[in-house]
Amino acid sequence: MTADAGCVLAELQEAAASANRLLPMSLGSEGSCTLGGIVSTNAGGTSVLRYGMMRSLVLGLEVVLPDGTVLDQLGALRKDNTGYDVKQLFIGAEGTLGVVTAASLRLWPLPAAFATAMAAVPAPKDALALLGRLREALGDAVTTFELVPRIALEFVCRHVESARDPFERAHNWYVLTEVSLPQPDSDLGARFESALAAAIDDGVATDAVTATSEAQREALWRLRETIPEGQRHEGASLKHDVSVEPAALPRFIEEGRELIARLAPGARLIAYGHLGDGNLHFNVSAPAGAQDDALARAADAIGRAVHDLVARHRGSISAEHGIGQLKVGELARYEDPAALDLMHRIKQAIDPQGIMNPGKVLAERG
Amino acid sequence: MTADAGCVLAELQEAAASANRLLPMSLGSEGSCTLGGIVSTNAGGTSVLRYGMMRSLVLGLEVVLPDGTVLDQLGALRKDNTGYDVKQLFIGAEGTLGVVTAASLRLWPLPAAFATAMAAVPAPKDALALLGRLREALGDAVTTFELVPRIALEFVCRHVESARDPFERAHNWYVLTEVSLPQPDSDLGARFESALAAAIDDGVATDAVTATSEAQREALWRLRETIPEGQRHEGASLKHDVSVEPAALPRFIEEGRELIARLAPGARLIAYGHLGDGNLHFNVSAPAGAQDDALARAADAIGRAVHDLVARHRGSISAEHGIGQLKVGELARYEDPAALDLMHRIKQAIDPQGIMNPGKVLAERG
Repeated sequence: MTADAGCVLAELQEAAASANRLLPMSLGSEGSCTLGGIVSTNAGGTSVLRYGMMRSLVLGLEVVLPDGTVLDQLGALRKDNTGYDVKQLFIGAEGTLGVVTAASLRLWPLPAAFATAMAAVPAPKDALALLGRLREALGDAVTTFELVPRIALEFVCRHVESARDPFERAHNWYVLTEVSLPQPDSDLGARFESALAAAIDDGVATDAVTATSEAQREALWRLRETIPEGQRHEGASLKHDVSVEPAALPRFIEEGRELIARLAPGARLIAYGHLGDGNLHFNVSAPAGAQDDALARAADAIGRAVHDLVARHRGSISAEHGIGQLKVGELARYEDPAALDLMHRIKQAIDPQGIMNPGKVLAERG
Repeated sequence: MTADAGCVLAELQEAAASANRLLPMSLGSEGSCTLGGIVSTNAGGTSVLRYGMMRSLVLGLEVVLPDGTVLDQLGALRKDNTGYDVKQLFIGAEGTLGVVTAASLRLWPLPAAFATAMAAVPAPKDALALLGRLREALGDAVTTFELVPRIALEFVCRHVESARDPFERAHNWYVLTEVSLPQPDSDLGARFESALAAAIDDGVATDAVTATSEAQREALWRLRETIPEGQRHEGASLKHDVSVEPAALPRFIEEGRELIARLAPGARLIAYGHLGDGNLHFNVSAPAGAQDDALARAADAIGRAVHDLVARHRGSISAEHGIGQLKVGELARYEDPAALDLMHRIKQAIDPQGIMNPGKVLAERG
């Protein structure tokens, strides 16, 4: 599918669906974000586990370069090894090398069978083990695997209309997981449920609910998707978008929790998100009922400590949200100097006058 | 998996298999090609349809830059949007920007179920239709889909020891196709066979044989993998490695056949390969028994005409083999000038003295 950069993601998804195809990019902002934006930020979302980030969906690009030249690489070839793959440069460059004006996208078969569940697990390491089991049993059918801590579910149930806890008792952690297949498969739900049941038998999960209707499926997804809304009602917050190798996530969460407890006593950690990709939204809410701005005052110290922890785990301080303006200094601080130097050389080579989205991604060098 | 650049692909495949994982890169040269080489050439092969080219398997890279700096991007993060993804530059750059010294690779589950078949089809358009049907029925399980013309099968059966035609009568075209799943699935073979049987009923395929033992599977694969060997015994040849959008392939083959008949009367077209990726090895063998060097003398004119045809279809003149030395002039001729200019700017920015693999990919500019 080839589309202009101003097209809204939700409309592109609909256009693909009307041709019986899936555009597997799923984001909270899909009703407003545009194709140019999701290419330029190499967007992620809840389907990365199965389909990859935006980079893996882009077959071709049209880009206006800083000198006004149009780079026409809109062909939708799967294989092309003619010289450097220059279009890769503009994916995730946040508009600092050129303006993406159109893209050719890879589409996938529309799922014809799917099943959705929320599982309760004792701890993040069990969530990882559950992911391994589901993949063992169902392979690539595992499309979504999102970690949700108890506190996030509480925030959502407290503030989001019609949201309710699907379990009878409280659990420490939850996972929203979906499996899907492109061909009809009447067995998929049964295999999914039996893998979940085996995980419960073995103590990897403590409980699970599966959606038996589209309304139930939407209700489960809503619990995951409204976490930002729930958190907004709980006072001041800090947000970090980090990734480490998935196997390192449980330890990262524990070390991060200790760090927050030390730097912002009483503050509440909301670590949730794309467990299968090693990507967490490592957010912090002010202590319940806090009236002062202590959390805001601690923001810089907390940000620094969280990013130091990420660096110790050789992770990313911006897994899917990019650098923008806010993290220009953080990128300069944490990035490998050789990589940072390459980025500056590329910027200088393609936009020597620095007119493309100035002030974003890279700091000016004196 | 992280490995040094000198490791041989077959050894990496074995290492992955011993950890119950698949390194899905499958090439005729896998017994000798090294990791550094397949990264630097963005290798393709017979698993691209399902798993993508080398670029999609690289999670991290270590590269020595022209000034001796080591770029350490070996982390195996699935998501990392911190600035430009500089490692992408070195994948497929054929060593002209730096020397790849190690890589972290994405592994996949080892297939636990698979089925292999050779189908006979009337024409390339039927092969495409068969691919659509198999994907409809089996989704992503379709791992391999390789087009083989009758003449290639004849060459192989004539010259390769123990190779034999698996069909009772001759057919115009063949497809080697394999489906696989990461989890055991006793139904896979039956679903594959029923999709093939339906295709025969509807005239999309004329016949099909499925492998019922590992020996039969190997024999079918051997028919595909020894095409270059078979062709070698048939006298002088010309090779072109081209891609177009898959839907354009049938027309491309017909137009290419007319072109060869005009420029090299009696020469034999061997158009085979990765149909599902739109990538054909569009090879030409001298007329049977030819003793003169007419084909060699026509080589430049044929190459130019084939590449002109590719350009009219907005395809690639080097789908998986890269540019090297031989195609430096062809790249300069056919590449979009804006893209070519970007390549030169990148080369100048990273290797200003031109010391990395000089003479490859890009011509020196005066």
